[in-house]
Amino acid sequence: MTHGEHWIAGKLSQQVPATFYSVNPRTREQGSIGFSDATGAEIDRACAAAREAFAVTRTYSAARLADFLDAVAAKIESHKDDMIATADRETALGEARLTGELGRTTGQLRAFAGLLREGSYVGAIIDSALPDRKPAPRQDIRRMLHPIGPVAVFAASNFPFAFSVCGGDTASAWAAGCPVVVKAHPGHPETAQLFAQAVTEALSDSGFPAGFFSLLHGTGYEVGTRLVQHEAISTVGFTGSFGGGMALYKAAAQRHQPIPVYAEMGSVNPTIITQKTLETRGEALAEGLVNSVLLGAGQFCTNPGLVLMQDSAEARSFVHMIAEKVSARTPQVLLNAQILAGLEKSIALTTGASAVTVVTGGQPANEPGYCFQNTVLQTNGRDFLAQPGLAREHFGPVTLLVLCSDRDEWMHVLAALEGQLTASVHGEPDEAVELVDVLGLLREKAGRVIWNGFPTGVEVVYAQQHGGPFPATTAPATTSVGLTAVARFLRPVAYQNMPDALLPDALKMNNPLGIWRIVNGELTRATG
Amino acid sequence: MTHGEHWIAGKLSQQVPATFYSVNPRTREQGSIGFSDATGAEIDRACAAAREAFAVTRTYSAARLADFLDAVAAKIESHKDDMIATADRETALGEARLTGELGRTTGQLRAFAGLLREGSYVGAIIDSALPDRKPAPRQDIRRMLHPIGPVAVFAASNFPFAFSVCGGDTASAWAAGCPVVVKAHPGHPETAQLFAQAVTEALSDSGFPAGFFSLLHGTGYEVGTRLVQHEAISTVGFTGSFGGGMALYKAAAQRHQPIPVYAEMGSVNPTIITQKTLETRGEALAEGLVNSVLLGAGQFCTNPGLVLMQDSAEARSFVHMIAEKVSARTPQVLLNAQILAGLEKSIALTTGASAVTVVTGGQPANEPGYCFQNTVLQTNGRDFLAQPGLAREHFGPVTLLVLCSDRDEWMHVLAALEGQLTASVHGEPDEAVELVDVLGLLREKAGRVIWNGFPTGVEVVYAQQHGGPFPATTAPATTSVGLTAVARFLRPVAYQNMPDALLPDALKMNNPLGIWRIVNGELTRATG
Repeated sequence: MTHGEHWIAGKLSQQVPATFYSVNPRTREQGSIGFSDATGAEIDRACAAAREAFAVTRTYSAARLADFLDAVAAKIESHKDDMIATADRETALGEARLTGELGRTTGQLRAFAGLLREGSYVGAIIDSALPDRKPAPRQDIRRMLHPIGPVAVFAASNFPFAFSVCGGDTASAWAAGCPVVVKAHPGHPETAQLFAQAVTEALSDSGFPAGFFSLLHGTGYEVGTRLVQHEAISTVGFTGSFGGGMALYKAAAQRHQPIPVYAEMGSVNPTIITQKTLETRGEALAEGLVNSVLLGAGQFCTNPGLVLMQDSAEARSFVHMIAEKVSARTPQVLLNAQILAGLEKSIALTTGASAVTVVTGGQPANEPGYCFQNTVLQTNGRDFLAQPGLAREHFGPVTLLVLCSDRDEWMHVLAALEGQLTASVHGEPDEAVELVDVLGLLREKAGRVIWNGFPTGVEVVYAQQHGGPFPATTAPATTSVGLTAVARFLRPVAYQNMPDALLPDALKMNNPLGIWRIVNGELTRATG
Repeated sequence: MTHGEHWIAGKLSQQVPATFYSVNPRTREQGSIGFSDATGAEIDRACAAAREAFAVTRTYSAARLADFLDAVAAKIESHKDDMIATADRETALGEARLTGELGRTTGQLRAFAGLLREGSYVGAIIDSALPDRKPAPRQDIRRMLHPIGPVAVFAASNFPFAFSVCGGDTASAWAAGCPVVVKAHPGHPETAQLFAQAVTEALSDSGFPAGFFSLLHGTGYEVGTRLVQHEAISTVGFTGSFGGGMALYKAAAQRHQPIPVYAEMGSVNPTIITQKTLETRGEALAEGLVNSVLLGAGQFCTNPGLVLMQDSAEARSFVHMIAEKVSARTPQVLLNAQILAGLEKSIALTTGASAVTVVTGGQPANEPGYCFQNTVLQTNGRDFLAQPGLAREHFGPVTLLVLCSDRDEWMHVLAALEGQLTASVHGEPDEAVELVDVLGLLREKAGRVIWNGFPTGVEVVYAQQHGGPFPATTAPATTSVGLTAVARFLRPVAYQNMPDALLPDALKMNNPLGIWRIVNGELTRATG
């Protein structure tokens, strides 16, 4: 591979000359493969191919889709050394992290394959006819979920594998039976090419239509905006910045046929630490918190960016401990120039506010790569409440510690926060009862509520909820991690009075798939 | 009751003098109770009370919510004679239909109560900790659905009970634990008052906060737009016109915090009749189709407004039969002046197109009330395809018969249609196999696919799907009828590492509610 072509339904295309290149964030050196924005015609071709593929794949069995997901996972594994090396060069995330992330990515694909083989995710519900009902017979009504249509997926900068070409959005859309057009992230386009290669091989081996997958490159918002406004696209999955997510949300709302945009746009992930916890185990907690803040150079949507404590001698000592630990760690390289510039800007806005102290860090690090000092900021509850901008996200190795005068102020700060992906409470076992109101409030604010733990390291399990009220996401009733993520790409259809031969297998009388169904109000997997 | 006050959290309010009155559609006589648009201050009070109520009701048990739904149903029954008489005077729908609709309304409330008592609707999923996992222990993650927040519900003109103050949207929002602010339909405001009275009594008897329900009156879009833009409102349920639904959708998308609008905006409900069916049982089918077209003066979102046949002697004879039957029935009174005016306008647009024939009807009827002739229109497939406007809805006792030259044209007409609530096929048993592609296409176009049946008379069962792709609705993945309608008003929350005592009952280790849960990948209702 020597050129930065788009992959459009199995064919390579690059209609305009290269305008951008991969950049090594450790050295700021440019790669040799030139990429360019997909043209309108290229976007059209990818979307039309997706629509055509959907006419075929929408009737594929769950088992066939599961085999394809497994095939993609195997192909990724067969290319993994190359993928990890390339991604490391493009993102500076390091081999250990990338090895783990690759395992998460193949694990997600296989977990969805498992969900499909079990089969009950289609939510089959059957209400039988009552021919003798008066005044009119009751009709037989059966309902299940079907794929919604072609999906546009936007790769994230901070997860070159797990939220990119074959990440969670793509895996869950494919699991639903939906073709995917991926907009690659310009921060790791060469990595994206390797994944496109793997997918193309898997599609061919599986006998799937080539239009089930396309990969388009682009910088800026234009390619993405055109993609979500294409009439063939039915749904959008996005992980990234608030600005990017809202641009797509608005573009989608302006279509003749509006479509849902599932955008995960980040969070400051408030963390509350009780006075008693500070007294009992402040030092151990400080170590855990610093690990979470600095993990992946803080480039996680779930980074604990806002920590609330009651002002006390222990709280001040905790601030000191955090600052010491944070400044003792070597600054890590950030993903790209945009992340560094964005971080400088958000830190400048925050530190320009009254009563915000830079405890440590606060500046770009004097390194060849894109590097920012590990940073601890401090303020008090009153000033935080007076300046809503202090709730902004600093995407990087940064946390803001807020010392509140009392419990009331603490609750006011929490109540003032907008929607969050996560919220965490560190408390002692005997404080549980008095924290019920805090937890009740956090449940309204966040998609995931954590007790004595840290928000980073999102478990990829069936029960995971990675989402939350706006502005954390545009769709608080959905998740982008965990097996229920597939629900974003399914829509229900009811069948009335349909002969058994014309019903999908999931709804046939004798339950040939052996799945769980709600039959006349009772959950059962009876067959025959 | 002598005034047309708004009901704001149990208190009556009417800040501005009356500007509109109920109108009897049979006589065009105005009622004596004067209503006015809710003011900004009144909207604020209703929304603030809903937000306050939510702080209380969001922790109510499913059992407590179920008791409230039952209490509302009982109150409605105790006022039912008055409700039916008032609604008949305001809508001319007749006592028999309204008696049935009242039963449906109380039935819906009780069906949701049943869903709550069974309890599994919260979708509990548990993935246990794996303390020995390497490199890091797996955290305990548990997920369930919680209420999303205050809901704005817009009453529909054509279902004064079942899609109005205590209709399906309200019942499902309450079932979720969400307070509701209803915008009454100005076509039946006195009926709305009686329901508000019943709800207020039930709230008081049940010890619920008064802000769990408010009723606001208004004409035009202003009250509704302000209501959906109020920051306390989290979700919107709407049934009505395309114009009304899209106005609310756009108003919601422009908020600082965008919110979902679940708008059901109607449909032409394509009905396909095979040549063999026309030959075998054309006359019986004609009788059934005419009954469906004229039911409730055709004022149903599921009215079969577009019928496709292959051109043949039998098809022409079928058109003749339909026209004879339709013109032999006495025209019924429409709901209000706006419906009549809208129907005149849409019929004029359609009959003004080339190659559309008025087979019978097509004019307002010469009656004292709001009345339109029972109408049959006819065109051919080629002209239908050439004029996309012919797919418009005629909300009233009207159907358009399209005679296609061959099977290909038939498929092109179907493929050209936008999203629909329903699609029906009338075929003979031995035609099933050759209709698979037709049914596959209809599944993409509609929320409900019907075999040898009619789309009106929506069964209120668990499995029902009343929704469909845009422009039938703004949210094809949801339904406004059937028990899964509650999902629109719930959002998931995951709990990480949470002590059992702090978990909601649905997620506690010993399953005190005895509900179905997915525990480590297996569906079970094991307790203890």
